[in-house]
Amino acid sequence: MAGTGVTYAPRPVADQLSLRRSNLSLVLRHLDASGPLSRARLAQATGLTKATVSSLVAELAERGLVREGDVERGAVGRPGHQVQMNGPGACGIGIELNVDYVASVVVDLAGRVVASDHLALPASRLGPDAVLDEVARVADAALAVVAAESSHAAGVTLALPGGVDATEGTLTYAPNLGWREVAVVAALAERLGDRDVPVRVDNEANLAALGEYRAGAAAGTPDLLLLTGEVGVGGGVISGGRLLRGGRGYGGEVGHMQLDPHGDECGCGRRGCWETLAGLTPLMRAAAGPGDDLLDPTVPLEHRLTELSRRAEAGDARTLAALAQVGSWLGLGAALLVNVLNPTVLVLGGYFATLGPWLTEPVRRQLTERVVAPGAGGCRVQLSTLGFAAAVRGGAQVALDAVLDDPTIVSGPVTASRPMSTAGA
Amino acid sequence: MAGTGVTYAPRPVADQLSLRRSNLSLVLRHLDASGPLSRARLAQATGLTKATVSSLVAELAERGLVREGDVERGAVGRPGHQVQMNGPGACGIGIELNVDYVASVVVDLAGRVVASDHLALPASRLGPDAVLDEVARVADAALAVVAAESSHAAGVTLALPGGVDATEGTLTYAPNLGWREVAVVAALAERLGDRDVPVRVDNEANLAALGEYRAGAAAGTPDLLLLTGEVGVGGGVISGGRLLRGGRGYGGEVGHMQLDPHGDECGCGRRGCWETLAGLTPLMRAAAGPGDDLLDPTVPLEHRLTELSRRAEAGDARTLAALAQVGSWLGLGAALLVNVLNPTVLVLGGYFATLGPWLTEPVRRQLTERVVAPGAGGCRVQLSTLGFAAAVRGGAQVALDAVLDDPTIVSGPVTASRPMSTAGA
Repeated sequence: MAGTGVTYAPRPVADQLSLRRSNLSLVLRHLDASGPLSRARLAQATGLTKATVSSLVAELAERGLVREGDVERGAVGRPGHQVQMNGPGACGIGIELNVDYVASVVVDLAGRVVASDHLALPASRLGPDAVLDEVARVADAALAVVAAESSHAAGVTLALPGGVDATEGTLTYAPNLGWREVAVVAALAERLGDRDVPVRVDNEANLAALGEYRAGAAAGTPDLLLLTGEVGVGGGVISGGRLLRGGRGYGGEVGHMQLDPHGDECGCGRRGCWETLAGLTPLMRAAAGPGDDLLDPTVPLEHRLTELSRRAEAGDARTLAALAQVGSWLGLGAALLVNVLNPTVLVLGGYFATLGPWLTEPVRRQLTERVVAPGAGGCRVQLSTLGFAAAVRGGAQVALDAVLDDPTIVSGPVTASRPMSTAGA
Repeated sequence: MAGTGVTYAPRPVADQLSLRRSNLSLVLRHLDASGPLSRARLAQATGLTKATVSSLVAELAERGLVREGDVERGAVGRPGHQVQMNGPGACGIGIELNVDYVASVVVDLAGRVVASDHLALPASRLGPDAVLDEVARVADAALAVVAAESSHAAGVTLALPGGVDATEGTLTYAPNLGWREVAVVAALAERLGDRDVPVRVDNEANLAALGEYRAGAAAGTPDLLLLTGEVGVGGGVISGGRLLRGGRGYGGEVGHMQLDPHGDECGCGRRGCWETLAGLTPLMRAAAGPGDDLLDPTVPLEHRLTELSRRAEAGDARTLAALAQVGSWLGLGAALLVNVLNPTVLVLGGYFATLGPWLTEPVRRQLTERVVAPGAGGCRVQLSTLGFAAAVRGGAQVALDAVLDDPTIVSGPVTASRPMSTAGA
């Protein structure tokens, strides 16, 4: 007997109507997690009767969310059709607005990436109004893709590089954009006008953590820490299978942990922040010689990262020393977080993944040395395979999760000619 | 539309039997959270029909978990009896084993402390076998109290000062006890022999956080961070209403965060750990003059803390400077954690609470300066009112939560003559 995963608040109501909704969700989530299953196996897995499962599957099929799959020939019983997620039944849209680009992805219920887009945009120079006009255009294009697929748009989730009050739907602060207190959800919903689609917002690293949790190399690991290197250092925490958001949704702010009281001044005005030790700027500064292109802000970041990797591969001593030093500071902060959070996997994303071949070892070494629990508390280190696309992927998934949680928000098959809507959401 | 509290794993099965169990739990948790309620109000609050609520209440009463309360005279309708938790229906037992004491508490379903005990024990000098014999005796005494109350023993939870694998029921490491890899749950269950009572184990700071969450001044705050000063610095995190345990249950290890790379060596062999900056030892060292009793390990800690408070109250400059310095380091580490976790409340426990009058302000100042989100992300600072009793309180609650989660583990009223059991658990 062990385990103390207790909750305090009474759980949601479970009357007959919500029981049906909850069972529809249960079946859909099982299919989502396990892939195609026969009704018999679904019954086994959920503990529901076969008759109930058949009725639930029929309703899900009517709503366009599942479909008949291949015939399963098991060891016992009659062969039966498997049931599987119907990808085109619904799509989620994730959009990321960052300092110099807008990116988007459309993901269907089966996890297929239906479309993706990436567009350079000097967001920090334009004001919120002009930028949100552009974001709305990107959302419009994504919604058009969903309509062309005769699918339901389950929602649009916007990922932002800053502190987000997700409940209020506002961006509170985004130093790198120069924005404060922008009611982004209201602004975007207004721009999308009669397209009655749910709009949500969250911090980019939080959504990237969700993306990794749902579609990354460590998908399904309930205790996962994502550390992502972009202009700053971002963090997203999945704890017990849920995104750790904190009381106001500001959780995962790791870039300004003070790790060296005698360290350099940070752009935030404080001293010795993690970003000043393990961020892109200190890496480039340590790696660059005099007049080096690595420090030229007019050269696109990808090109500078490619050049850095090339030098590291060629065995350049200055580059390797810079990577070892930044990797060590990255590992030191990671070890601190691993002590607090005890994740099963630490995913390195953004440019930490790009430079993973040189950063992973120093990070592992610090975890081994500095995590108090034996064997780094069981934490392994993995590189993101989603890279910079993790946040949009997580955003799309947030929209799809609304369908998985309550399949009745999708009313049934739509045709291309019918106006797209979230149908009773 | 906002909020991304999604989960990945399919939720538990909801067939008719588990629905009944879940509704019994729902009603019991509502009464637990709200206090006495009429059946009509319970129906309103849960969304269940009045007939269902009456049937559920009847079953809970039969199991001895609720009872009729005062007559409620509302504005409308006939006056009716309220239903309330029946305290003696079940009791939870929390036991804390620390470096120099064993403490225990028996708490009933209504939150009443039925009994408590505190016993000096040089645990770090005796081996695990002798100490666990003593713990078993304390558990036995607590079980006798429960039996004398004609109550059900819902379980015993042991709080330990170290890394605990709660799933396996083992203490992995406890530097201050000098223990490694002790299968405490098995050892204690064996000593309790035919007393068929569930035994659980967890880290003391985790359980203290649960204690604060359930019975402290900030009870019910879903995002709560507890920092407790004892021999080391302990941390416990409640996130979204659940204890953050991490993949193997090692979460909340905050004492060895490296906050000063140039700092003093720590007992753990590392350098600049938080404990070396905000722990009891650096505080006493900074506050003490030459040959000062504050540094005498033979003087009980309570006496030394009382003396320190006396000096601070008297305005002694050295003492006040030491408290300001330690408070500042405490706040610096707290700010880092508040950035990562965004708690709504930071509870200071253990001797941080005892010395709260002098530590709170420097902590608040650091939060204001160092938390990136505006207004410290909404985090307020409170002193624990449970103090050193928080861990045993949390332990008792973990046992009681098993009943709140599944009231059917209690089979019905017991009499003093019937052997105590967890009846079908």
